[in-house]
Amino acid sequence: MQTSPIEPPTLREHIGDVLRLIRRAQGRTLREVSSDAQVSLGYLSEVERGQKEASSELLAAISKALGVPLSFVLREVADRIALMEGVDIPDTVPASLMDETLEDRITLLS
Amino acid sequence: MQTSPIEPPTLREHIGDVLRLIRRAQGRTLREVSSDAQVSLGYLSEVERGQKEASSELLAAISKALGVPLSFVLREVADRIALMEGVDIPDTVPASLMDETLEDRITLLS
Repeated sequence: MQTSPIEPPTLREHIGDVLRLIRRAQGRTLREVSSDAQVSLGYLSEVERGQKEASSELLAAISKALGVPLSFVLREVADRIALMEGVDIPDTVPASLMDETLEDRITLLS
Repeated sequence: MQTSPIEPPTLREHIGDVLRLIRRAQGRTLREVSSDAQVSLGYLSEVERGQKEASSELLAAISKALGVPLSFVLREVADRIALMEGVDIPDTVPASLMDETLEDRITLLS
């Protein structure tokens, strides 16, 4: 995760982190996913690094290429931001923010 | 909500719907919120109507101006998209998608 002592990660960076984690958990390359999502490899790479905002359409296409519902990606992102914001979400298990647990959930979706 | 018989609402439209519902639940005008968020009234209006993608920074600024955590906005959006996707989310109460319930949650946050 891209963190700095000054600025917390932006929404864009959290989205990139989650997309990259899902892709890596599936053992897939940027090339494979960008091809399936019909986006350029450079664009997907920039999105994963939080350097470019993904449009709604492209975020939907990337989620589809990864085989996960868009709502799943958004919930993971919301969980991470809630932790950063110190927002209490009773039905969220803190461990859900660990990458291993994300991998488990991705496996369950497959 | 902007629905069409052909295309389901995009992420952008869901975000706009949620932001507008929160603002209206607070009885605030576009002018007030755009001023607090330091975005133009026209821009906020376009975002609420799902006509423009909000950047990560501006979505954070609008959430802050509305006095709600960004994670709250994202969870509401994720819930709506999950319903659209038919994704089973055990800890989500279906009634949470009703606007009255959203209003209750906004009141609890205030």
